[in-house]
Amino acid sequence: MCFFVNQWYLYIYTMNQIRTVSIIGAGNVAFHLARAFVENTIQVNQIYNRTLQQAQKIGEAHQIKYTDKISELVKSDLFVIAASDSAITELSLHIPFDDVMVVHTSGSIPMNALRGDYKKGVFYPLQTFSKGRNLEYDEIPIFIETEKSEDEKILFQFADRISNHVEIINSEQRAQLHLAAVWVCNFVNHMYYIGEKLTTDANLPFDYLKPLIEETAAKIKSLSPYDAQTGPAKRADHIVMQKHLELLQNQNFKDMYEKISKSIAEIYKNEL
Amino acid sequence: MCFFVNQWYLYIYTMNQIRTVSIIGAGNVAFHLARAFVENTIQVNQIYNRTLQQAQKIGEAHQIKYTDKISELVKSDLFVIAASDSAITELSLHIPFDDVMVVHTSGSIPMNALRGDYKKGVFYPLQTFSKGRNLEYDEIPIFIETEKSEDEKILFQFADRISNHVEIINSEQRAQLHLAAVWVCNFVNHMYYIGEKLTTDANLPFDYLKPLIEETAAKIKSLSPYDAQTGPAKRADHIVMQKHLELLQNQNFKDMYEKISKSIAEIYKNEL
Repeated sequence: MCFFVNQWYLYIYTMNQIRTVSIIGAGNVAFHLARAFVENTIQVNQIYNRTLQQAQKIGEAHQIKYTDKISELVKSDLFVIAASDSAITELSLHIPFDDVMVVHTSGSIPMNALRGDYKKGVFYPLQTFSKGRNLEYDEIPIFIETEKSEDEKILFQFADRISNHVEIINSEQRAQLHLAAVWVCNFVNHMYYIGEKLTTDANLPFDYLKPLIEETAAKIKSLSPYDAQTGPAKRADHIVMQKHLELLQNQNFKDMYEKISKSIAEIYKNEL
Repeated sequence: MCFFVNQWYLYIYTMNQIRTVSIIGAGNVAFHLARAFVENTIQVNQIYNRTLQQAQKIGEAHQIKYTDKISELVKSDLFVIAASDSAITELSLHIPFDDVMVVHTSGSIPMNALRGDYKKGVFYPLQTFSKGRNLEYDEIPIFIETEKSEDEKILFQFADRISNHVEIINSEQRAQLHLAAVWVCNFVNHMYYIGEKLTTDANLPFDYLKPLIEETAAKIKSLSPYDAQTGPAKRADHIVMQKHLELLQNQNFKDMYEKISKSIAEIYKNEL
């Protein structure tokens, strides 16, 4: 009797587990996901990209079959569309299977951009992905969403094999998180770019700024950004700010300097 | 004979070495410098601040004598003015000794803001100083400048006792370095502030962003900021940028988003 119960349980369980994956897309996110899946002994059946060369690069690196023919997609438990935002809907229409799950990896696209009769979800890893970086995948938070509540656990268990930080959030929260990520990653990196430009213009190595960059990022682990703020805008030091505007040659840099300083100054104006 | 030569050499050497220090000011920079000096067994004779309580706090923490009476300054080999930019000249006029060295610690003030008949210099540690942070002082770059070339070695040797990265730069380079620091530290921290605001507004913990913040700072150790850039502005993804502007409620945030995105987009426009 016990034997039968176990068999039945096993049957249900295996139907509800993601064991095989296909990756649609071959950009930076696809590159790192392929590596994360393989490192965690998840079977990747196939990688598709409309440009064969890109699919081939990732495929050959990880012994994954690859194709540039969307009609040749083979069946997997999960299809991960790691493509540009504008390509997601179009690609989602080409997945010819009903009894599979399809997720996209975009921060800014709602789940309902996926069009098909399959199970739908989102698998959003919050990280900046550049090729040539070795990432600790288990430290990258993954934010998941599923159309049907019964699929939540399945996608959660799958994401949990890769990351120690899996969270369930809805599309609105994800959009807000993605916006926040633009500030703390993309915009921060642009500040680094300007820092590099200014130091090299003064014949100084960018390396001089690196301990400061490191401490600025480390500081907010123990202080809130509000408490960590320093600098002329916080002190409303108009003499220094005027000097800085005069030193800046580039009009975009001047505009940013003014707007960012104004925003900081308004937050701290009551503390002076 | 040899004995006399050694004695003579020792005499010259000790005349040209900084053995004792006084600190003028008791803000965040003074706080950390006092700790760095004491940790490196440099004798700090006195700390002065016009508000006794602040001088007392640092003084008592490190067994340093303190005063709020500028007329009671005792003589040291080196006076470090770690005060606000606008107070430097005024304070420098109150140092009543000729055969000492006086330095300020400001990134944006030229050396000639110091007025007196003593040896003049600048001692600029490039770091963001908040109380309540433990810093590795030997990793903080210190940028020095002296009025007379014969003093350069003396100040260098002194700075070298504290930091592994001592560099000689002029006032113009220092001003540019300070401007660069505003971007990679003060402005970056403001981006973190906005990231925190956006996540908490969506009922999400700021912690979700921390692995991304860490990787963004770590990435530029191996990639240039130019190569490390990602995000909608680089891709000229106007759909996402429009959505983000709609999500932002705060007008300052909208203005910054537009200006920073414009600057990024112009740098990468020829790559699309």
